[in-house]
Amino acid sequence: MRIRSFVLGTVAAVALATGAAAADGFGEGLRGTGDLGVVIERATGQVAVVDRLESARLATVEGLGDLSHASVVFGPSERYAYVFGRDGGLTKVDVLTGTIDARVVQSGNSIGGAISEDGSLVAVANYEPGGVKVFDAETLDLVADIPATDIGEGKRSKVVGLEDAPGNRFVFSLYDTDEIWIADFSKDRTAPEITKYPAIGRQPYDALVSEDGRWYLAGLFGEDGIAMLDLWNPDKGVRQVLEGYGRGEEALPVYKMPHLEGWAVAGGYAWLPAIGRHSVLVVDMDTWEQVAEIPVHGQPVFVMARPGGRHVWVNFALPDNEFVQVIDTQALEVVDTLEPGPGVLHMEFTPRGDRVWLSVRDKDEVHVYDTATRERLAVLPAEKPSGIFFTSRAHRIGL
Amino acid sequence: MRIRSFVLGTVAAVALATGAAAADGFGEGLRGTGDLGVVIERATGQVAVVDRLESARLATVEGLGDLSHASVVFGPSERYAYVFGRDGGLTKVDVLTGTIDARVVQSGNSIGGAISEDGSLVAVANYEPGGVKVFDAETLDLVADIPATDIGEGKRSKVVGLEDAPGNRFVFSLYDTDEIWIADFSKDRTAPEITKYPAIGRQPYDALVSEDGRWYLAGLFGEDGIAMLDLWNPDKGVRQVLEGYGRGEEALPVYKMPHLEGWAVAGGYAWLPAIGRHSVLVVDMDTWEQVAEIPVHGQPVFVMARPGGRHVWVNFALPDNEFVQVIDTQALEVVDTLEPGPGVLHMEFTPRGDRVWLSVRDKDEVHVYDTATRERLAVLPAEKPSGIFFTSRAHRIGL
Repeated sequence: MRIRSFVLGTVAAVALATGAAAADGFGEGLRGTGDLGVVIERATGQVAVVDRLESARLATVEGLGDLSHASVVFGPSERYAYVFGRDGGLTKVDVLTGTIDARVVQSGNSIGGAISEDGSLVAVANYEPGGVKVFDAETLDLVADIPATDIGEGKRSKVVGLEDAPGNRFVFSLYDTDEIWIADFSKDRTAPEITKYPAIGRQPYDALVSEDGRWYLAGLFGEDGIAMLDLWNPDKGVRQVLEGYGRGEEALPVYKMPHLEGWAVAGGYAWLPAIGRHSVLVVDMDTWEQVAEIPVHGQPVFVMARPGGRHVWVNFALPDNEFVQVIDTQALEVVDTLEPGPGVLHMEFTPRGDRVWLSVRDKDEVHVYDTATRERLAVLPAEKPSGIFFTSRAHRIGL
Repeated sequence: MRIRSFVLGTVAAVALATGAAAADGFGEGLRGTGDLGVVIERATGQVAVVDRLESARLATVEGLGDLSHASVVFGPSERYAYVFGRDGGLTKVDVLTGTIDARVVQSGNSIGGAISEDGSLVAVANYEPGGVKVFDAETLDLVADIPATDIGEGKRSKVVGLEDAPGNRFVFSLYDTDEIWIADFSKDRTAPEITKYPAIGRQPYDALVSEDGRWYLAGLFGEDGIAMLDLWNPDKGVRQVLEGYGRGEEALPVYKMPHLEGWAVAGGYAWLPAIGRHSVLVVDMDTWEQVAEIPVHGQPVFVMARPGGRHVWVNFALPDNEFVQVIDTQALEVVDTLEPGPGVLHMEFTPRGDRVWLSVRDKDEVHVYDTATRERLAVLPAEKPSGIFFTSRAHRIGL
């Protein structure tokens, strides 16, 4: 394999070691933001600002708290990244200057968030105290507080699977009380209309919104199946589909529950990580019937489609997390196996799909691959990297 | 209807009248580019730089030549707009400064262009002399010249329907010789591999690539039907589908051939402007059978899906070009009719679909609508506006 070395990458590696913040010239002049991104460095509570065209690390932003399981959304101008930490921290990072623009610690324990369709509201899903808090995207001032259902002893249900949906709505699931709620901010940005769906299935643990903004799908920890809400027809309520999807009656050991946001949709099919089995499931989205089960190297975690859907890339739970496999969506079979190294935690495609970036945590590296040739194009230094997020997410529904 | 007035809009209107270039403070400090766009002002050979979040006109860039039928693509950083003029002019506009970064007059007569997947090559389709020229996206230096098929007397076929496709390919059609060509720049960026498909149908006049980058569809002027090339399986050649699609045996008067790039795809269906009839055709993309014909107010020109596909918006040829209609894609019927004013030439949705911008040429205005309420949110001044292009196109295949 050919490995390019980049001047900016080298500069950034030195900067990282010395604690300095940025590559030469960064933040000083006008530049576009469509080619930027951030990489979570969870061990050190910092993020790297990266340039996906140059495969370069541009700056390091420190002081973001506990970033295990952290995720990121972008404002519509693609200048500001909102980083959701595990400790309730919400940090607004300016990717043009590599600095923190605003930061609040808004709960004791949180699990991701979303940005509204119009870009003006940022919502966070909280475990403790259970509920959703909504902030002004510019100032991070609290705009709305939505406590979850009371579960006694002064506690409220944990909130999971918080997603944005068209019409300035947020949709989320209540783990302890088996509910899905819609909070509609289209009429009043401080007092949302809340619609509650009870008894949607036991213990929803994660969710996704399909790329078209129509389907909200929540995975269930307490039983098999998926809870589905049609956001074009919310009056029809929640129904369960894919009844066999889950850990199954044998309750196989599951090393890591797969991420639902990793679901790929390609060619009218959804591509799902099987739970506890070494396979990827292919499901017809018209009928929600399974049409194929593709054997893969380990327990899949993220199953992600290259933009356009020609291939699906898969990473794995322990003990197979040094591998990545590539599935041909026409042939329905694995066509390539890569071994970037131990701890491949996340994948991010460039928006038109020509490249993919991989976090290789235990090598302290981010790798850049050509998706067509599967050639490795670049290696960037990173401190225990996990999530990778490009600014192009700003323009997508449900990311 | 509520019409907001914006300070920047007012400043820009004054700037337009005096020939000054930009609103106060424009181009002076760092800013993101994800919320910017350009509007073609064809009568005066200029483009307006706009901010889609603020519904504001920021700057005017003059000196772009003949901009009738002009189109625009964006580089991946979203800083540079490439404007394809009718007179063979190719202009690289810096939307952060509102200035021309580079400009070439590369032929006598041209019809649109495309940018490669990796953002490094800009291609232009030429009528005179017939062929495709490919330029370095940074410098606009000529990188490759692809003359079209000789048609005698020193002339070459006109080239139409030039589109980008995954794998750093450009795909285009030859009007005079009934061909489709693929130029593959993935191995050598100065010497593309050319694949030629002859006898694809009579007189291809425009084309599109589907959003997933898989299907290249060319409309035929010389016969009914659509020429289709599956870019996932280019060895299978071109086949004709939708045999009834065209002007038909009665050869109805057609006031304006519809744009193919306006085709909407929503819910597994393609939504096509009927040619010469007052209807929108709904076609199942699995079978390429027509499943519905929806009556509309006039001869449709652009039939565009709101991102996510919940609605399809339609504008019309003369004598009905003051209207816009909205089709509900579930109900398969028109649910709203708007009358922005004479000369509605183009529509552009914000990337997550909450707003749409309309060019109202004969009122010298651009209108901004809320797509959910259909309320008009803003009016911007513009000199005979035609195409509107937001920077989010940078991240899409086939735009």
